[in-house]
Amino acid sequence: MNLDKIFTENKKRLKHSAHGGEIYNMNPENILNQIIDFSTNVNPLINHEISKQTYMNSLNHVPLYPDSNSTNLKKGIVVYFDNMITTENLIVGAGSMEIISIFCDIFIETGDEVIITQPTFSEYEWAVKKNGGNIVNVYRKPNNDFRIECKSILNQINSKTKAIFICNPNNPNGLLDNLSDIQKIINETSKHDVFVLLDETFIEFTGEDNSFIKKISDFDNLLICRGFSKYFGLPGLRVGYGVSTSEIINFISKGQNLWSVNCIGQILAQESLKSEKFIEDSYFFFNKERQFLIEDLRRISGLRIFPTDTNYILINSENIGIKSSEIKKFMLEKNILVRDCSNFEGLDDYYVRIAIKTRKLNLKLLQNLKDCFSPTN
Amino acid sequence: MNLDKIFTENKKRLKHSAHGGEIYNMNPENILNQIIDFSTNVNPLINHEISKQTYMNSLNHVPLYPDSNSTNLKKGIVVYFDNMITTENLIVGAGSMEIISIFCDIFIETGDEVIITQPTFSEYEWAVKKNGGNIVNVYRKPNNDFRIECKSILNQINSKTKAIFICNPNNPNGLLDNLSDIQKIINETSKHDVFVLLDETFIEFTGEDNSFIKKISDFDNLLICRGFSKYFGLPGLRVGYGVSTSEIINFISKGQNLWSVNCIGQILAQESLKSEKFIEDSYFFFNKERQFLIEDLRRISGLRIFPTDTNYILINSENIGIKSSEIKKFMLEKNILVRDCSNFEGLDDYYVRIAIKTRKLNLKLLQNLKDCFSPTN
Repeated sequence: MNLDKIFTENKKRLKHSAHGGEIYNMNPENILNQIIDFSTNVNPLINHEISKQTYMNSLNHVPLYPDSNSTNLKKGIVVYFDNMITTENLIVGAGSMEIISIFCDIFIETGDEVIITQPTFSEYEWAVKKNGGNIVNVYRKPNNDFRIECKSILNQINSKTKAIFICNPNNPNGLLDNLSDIQKIINETSKHDVFVLLDETFIEFTGEDNSFIKKISDFDNLLICRGFSKYFGLPGLRVGYGVSTSEIINFISKGQNLWSVNCIGQILAQESLKSEKFIEDSYFFFNKERQFLIEDLRRISGLRIFPTDTNYILINSENIGIKSSEIKKFMLEKNILVRDCSNFEGLDDYYVRIAIKTRKLNLKLLQNLKDCFSPTN
Repeated sequence: MNLDKIFTENKKRLKHSAHGGEIYNMNPENILNQIIDFSTNVNPLINHEISKQTYMNSLNHVPLYPDSNSTNLKKGIVVYFDNMITTENLIVGAGSMEIISIFCDIFIETGDEVIITQPTFSEYEWAVKKNGGNIVNVYRKPNNDFRIECKSILNQINSKTKAIFICNPNNPNGLLDNLSDIQKIINETSKHDVFVLLDETFIEFTGEDNSFIKKISDFDNLLICRGFSKYFGLPGLRVGYGVSTSEIINFISKGQNLWSVNCIGQILAQESLKSEKFIEDSYFFFNKERQFLIEDLRRISGLRIFPTDTNYILINSENIGIKSSEIKKFMLEKNILVRDCSNFEGLDDYYVRIAIKTRKLNLKLLQNLKDCFSPTN
């Protein structure tokens, strides 16, 4: 069997990028106790409103196939959005990653172009290329604080363009983009039969008013992705969802593997949407802690701090002259993992992303970053 | 936006078939208490060797991204197979469904042909068509007890053939196929650069000696699928795996969404592989209960019972003259769900599949089936 001959050149080039949270590779036996992970941007607060009793009861569902329609979770999401959407507007997946992936499986054909605003989440590129699509990169610029640039995006549209992917707030910088810019892009692209995939994975940190979900009926070419990994702190359970017109949802659903969302994820995600105190407490916690961390980071001479509305902060160390790989190595020796951002398309060797954690851990991070940048102090 | 124009004709035709276990659709609020589900072929025994303590401890992993490589589970699988394979031979997915799906995403291109032996699991067809492949059906025949027919399969191979999908034991009939026939198919197809996807989802019910996994190094064109849903009774957790050469596994892995397997599934699946008593007890339980159920079913005059080595039994009611849809309706009024098999390609309106459950439930099933088929008794 000549496997190399069978496997297409396009698929041969397919690969995932490196990501944060690679602690399983480092220390698979005892990951929970040793390394403090500032590389993944997950809410570090524990949701005490998800009861252990609910979790124990979920075990009763394990011997059953999960509801492939995630019926109850969809109903919970509708309530969370004040009944401004219906269950017909929803698809639930194994993380927002699955929603992005099946959007591409269903709509991207060989030779289609997809516009991506870089630097951003690298898996968009993977999902597009898996289906033979080509990437057109439009760059966010550091001198514009990595804001989206409406005009340069719209300029790239041609007859091959199938979709534009926008992450708002964007990963790795964390700044909420101008909503009227995004609205303009959605409206303009609709005229050209171009989709907008709007990844709102981090929008809860900025407040629900900034989401386009409740306005979904205003658009005919918009798919919004959300998840329970970041704000709700449930990455291990793999639950995300997509919101769009019922017509688009109906098409996308055709591409989804049956039973992709496990039963425990469905139950706990539903529970977490009801945890009002956790949702409110997290919002105020990050507002405060973000401010504290930024103010203290600003005291490090030469370090550039990019504005953010989320639970992560992008920093640039070029003026200090220490590369991100060196920072990562230094911090890892202190058992702290930070996100070396040098593999983000459109960033160079001097960018690091750090997550915001509890005050005690943030202080530990700050002290070690200061030691890294000012060894003589 | 003209969505209908954008969406390809091939994708428009894509759809999932109906399956067993549709109790969530029937009664989403209170599924666990009312209906006895004989439509899904999941081990009904509870694995007491999976401790509640392990389950509670798994909650600590929820705030972390799952290990995208399923490292520890892979190690557990290697031990389960007596170190006759390595972790390089393994890919773990969200159920064997994900393995089947990404095999097609990676290897099936538009216009490729895939040979499927019908009747069988309907999702093979979905996964092939999602990637633009065409299905060539080869039929298993009732007068041969739905055994695989080596010659008629090999006769269908041409230059467009990319893969042959075989489920052994096959769903919905449950009979273990002749292993030398399967081996012959794998050997012959290798010469033509054709893959064999061997779905061994039910092989544990027949004993591990019938699996091709330990012999994986003998073949260069074989991918075996397995899962934790059937024998190990964990369908709600979505864990399956694929076994092949390290080269093929390396290719397939390129097509997998990151973090598709949730953390709790990884932990409990690993635990379940160690539960020796459960594995042994289940084997003996089904051997005994299968025999009991078949003997009793044979007392129903006119009912045809197909031979099976698994935890499900295919029956044919043509001679009695009652259609499967009528049987399903009758049984549902008794709160029993059976699998109406009329939507399986290659079966007609007189086939029903029933799962083997505990003795008490089996007796209830038998009594109601008798009432259905012999209303005057």
